[in-house]
Amino acid sequence: TKLGEDWIFLVLLGITMALVSWTMDYASAKSLQGITVSRFPYSTSVSRVTYRNILLQYLVWVIYPMVLIIFATIFCHLVAPQAIGSGIPEMKTILRGVVLKEYLTLRAFISKVVGLTAALGSGLPIGKEGPFVHIASMCATVLSKFMSFFSGVYQSPYCYTDILTVGCAVGVGCCFGTPLGGVLFSIEVTSTYFAVRNYWRGYFAATFSAFIFRVLSVINKDTVTITALFRTKFRMDFPFDLQELPAFAIIGIIIMRPFNYLFIYLFFNSRVIYPCVVSFVIATLTFPPALGQFMAGELMPRESINSMFDNFTWNKIWGAPVPAGLGLSSAWLHPDVNIFIVIALFLIMRFWMSAISTTMPVPSGAFMPVFVLGAAFGRLVGEIMAALFPHGILFDGILYRIIPGGYAVIGAAAMSGAVTHTVSTAVICFEITGQISHVLPMMVAVILANMVAQGLQPSLYDSIIQVKK
Amino acid sequence: TKLGEDWIFLVLLGITMALVSWTMDYASAKSLQGITVSRFPYSTSVSRVTYRNILLQYLVWVIYPMVLIIFATIFCHLVAPQAIGSGIPEMKTILRGVVLKEYLTLRAFISKVVGLTAALGSGLPIGKEGPFVHIASMCATVLSKFMSFFSGVYQSPYCYTDILTVGCAVGVGCCFGTPLGGVLFSIEVTSTYFAVRNYWRGYFAATFSAFIFRVLSVINKDTVTITALFRTKFRMDFPFDLQELPAFAIIGIIIMRPFNYLFIYLFFNSRVIYPCVVSFVIATLTFPPALGQFMAGELMPRESINSMFDNFTWNKIWGAPVPAGLGLSSAWLHPDVNIFIVIALFLIMRFWMSAISTTMPVPSGAFMPVFVLGAAFGRLVGEIMAALFPHGILFDGILYRIIPGGYAVIGAAAMSGAVTHTVSTAVICFEITGQISHVLPMMVAVILANMVAQGLQPSLYDSIIQVKK
Repeated sequence: TKLGEDWIFLVLLGITMALVSWTMDYASAKSLQGITVSRFPYSTSVSRVTYRNILLQYLVWVIYPMVLIIFATIFCHLVAPQAIGSGIPEMKTILRGVVLKEYLTLRAFISKVVGLTAALGSGLPIGKEGPFVHIASMCATVLSKFMSFFSGVYQSPYCYTDILTVGCAVGVGCCFGTPLGGVLFSIEVTSTYFAVRNYWRGYFAATFSAFIFRVLSVINKDTVTITALFRTKFRMDFPFDLQELPAFAIIGIIIMRPFNYLFIYLFFNSRVIYPCVVSFVIATLTFPPALGQFMAGELMPRESINSMFDNFTWNKIWGAPVPAGLGLSSAWLHPDVNIFIVIALFLIMRFWMSAISTTMPVPSGAFMPVFVLGAAFGRLVGEIMAALFPHGILFDGILYRIIPGGYAVIGAAAMSGAVTHTVSTAVICFEITGQISHVLPMMVAVILANMVAQGLQPSLYDSIIQVKK
Repeated sequence: TKLGEDWIFLVLLGITMALVSWTMDYASAKSLQGITVSRFPYSTSVSRVTYRNILLQYLVWVIYPMVLIIFATIFCHLVAPQAIGSGIPEMKTILRGVVLKEYLTLRAFISKVVGLTAALGSGLPIGKEGPFVHIASMCATVLSKFMSFFSGVYQSPYCYTDILTVGCAVGVGCCFGTPLGGVLFSIEVTSTYFAVRNYWRGYFAATFSAFIFRVLSVINKDTVTITALFRTKFRMDFPFDLQELPAFAIIGIIIMRPFNYLFIYLFFNSRVIYPCVVSFVIATLTFPPALGQFMAGELMPRESINSMFDNFTWNKIWGAPVPAGLGLSSAWLHPDVNIFIVIALFLIMRFWMSAISTTMPVPSGAFMPVFVLGAAFGRLVGEIMAALFPHGILFDGILYRIIPGGYAVIGAAAMSGAVTHTVSTAVICFEITGQISHVLPMMVAVILANMVAQGLQPSLYDSIIQVKK
């Protein structure tokens, strides 16, 4: 059989990582609730102006993330500095056969888990995919050392690569509940030859892990369904048609160039930029009663993704009475400022904030911030298209309405695909949204973005590897 | 860049295969229309009894497929007998380094394309995935020989495996418009080590091919959308819950055992069973005015899949007035016979018919027939569940309605996964349906089916390889 003797290892790894992932999600969500205590009622024109206790609210908004970031910094520094950053570049290096010291120890594992939870709980735009890949790999290594007491199978160096490959798959799989994306990622992270036996093993472990992870969420009543994280609800008979493709292609081609340079520049010049200054500046700028109101600053990262993937066309409802079921998306509709300006401002501000946030010496990934930026860019293009063709696009005698949320999904996939040079992002994207109806245009956009990006520069991970050499 | 010099080759391969696939689809669809000329108005209780010209209709129903099958048999026999059968076992053997003579020539290509078109046009339950993999590989080989006039890159034996791997990905990709499933299949068909460069190349070529293929369908107005082939429209907020999982697991575990043995037995004892006898017997048994009315015999393979994936609960509407929008599904609702018996009869009859059809000396695959059987089995379980819990399942205070169509999708994925020992079938399944909301239970079912199947027997492809040795 394909599974071999080590199915116990795969099951244990899947359960452990699902528990770790769920606990971290739970803790950081509770922590984010602490910030949102100071959050303001959603934008009705009245509540925007009559703020009470504004100083107190400002202090909570700013000090809370600062404390968490400083804690994460000190904790990582003291316990294991290897936990700082994404971890994917290091994993790629290790999988190529280079031995990096202390990168796969229990100590680094604890450091990364605690540090990442605190950092995610601060609400700053940092990601968790990269750290999760690292955490799962450490977990797999530690687990296999533990298992080697019982069986000699786990000691050969040949087996070592296998364990790390499965670890990568499980890491991505239980991060967003996307097992398929996890397996594809574990192929892409491999340098030249992928052992086909790990395909099946990774698939098994990642699915198992994602399943437990989603079941835990359902049991805890966070979600009503085990299926998808950022569930989109575009109408199912959405007849995607050919005229919209140029817009998707443009999203794919434009998005991608400048992020890498800024990111890498800051990453290796960050010793002077202290994490508390960073978190202070970002929190101050996004403070909703001040500048934050012009860029939906009150939304936490997950909330902003959910709102950008919604079914409404914002430029149509801006200024009009708020329709039922708008929910969090109302944060984007400022009573005085045009919706395009709000999205554009969000895009610009979030761009450098994400880049700076990722340079802080805490565990943090780049996937989620890039994903949010791509979604915002796609939303902007979609809103512009919807404004240009307010009645939809005429194709073959039928009028198709434009759904800006669909553009946001494509933009997110194209941008994250271009920056990381992977195609598994497209898969992760539709596993996250639970809707595959845009799969072909999404893959076309990801491929176009990838082709252009490959011509211009190495991937984010490879850049970091090169610089660190 | 990852693409290298041969992107022209990938583009050409993608375009060629998309054109071939579309032309074959078009021709066989036109041919099926020839049969459906003799088809009867959909089951209203009146039209079932008052058949006119019943002898003429019977002759058309029986002779039409016989002529096509005989033509395919003779054509393949004369032009290139290598085109007979699926082709996947041979491809696996070739990818392991064995040289099989004449299996990748232009002659075999023509033989397979013409033979498969005729065989598909007959309406017998045979598949096209396997032959498509073979066709794409032949196309890739011929194309690379042609390209080697211009560049020496295409001549090394090292490059040969790469070309075949990409061919496999494109074959699956343009067969159903499922590029992702194609890439995963090309990994699974590889024996031990998969070259990561082919991941990107296969992804590019398969997406390109699937895209052109779908665009051709849209231009020809076969479909209104480029997105999915057997589009399902389960309500998007379908809150899949945990209590239904045992049912899915049972689907995964039960379905899979007996098919292989019967298939293999017949395949290698088929010299006495002549193709015309087979097509005569099958056509006679499915003749709608006779036995066919008890097993939805009037539906062509594609139509039966579409109807089984619908949103209705048949045992609720059976006997009641026909609801609007039922369409082809009405073929399943016999006025006098219980719906469970109809499905069960379809399952039993279709089982041996599929096995026998695949043994005919024409190009034919096993994927689609197995997929249909799995869908029928899933539908049966779903209908039984819906009958047992007519008001749905109570979970956490909310009542969830059971959708038998969802069970049909899972059953199709689990069955085809178990028989072929691949997990890419799950991916193909949700790419085909365009709906990913069942992805986690589907993957769990596929993994369970795979684990049981692996314990019991080698895969269909490997069995054939062993026997042919």
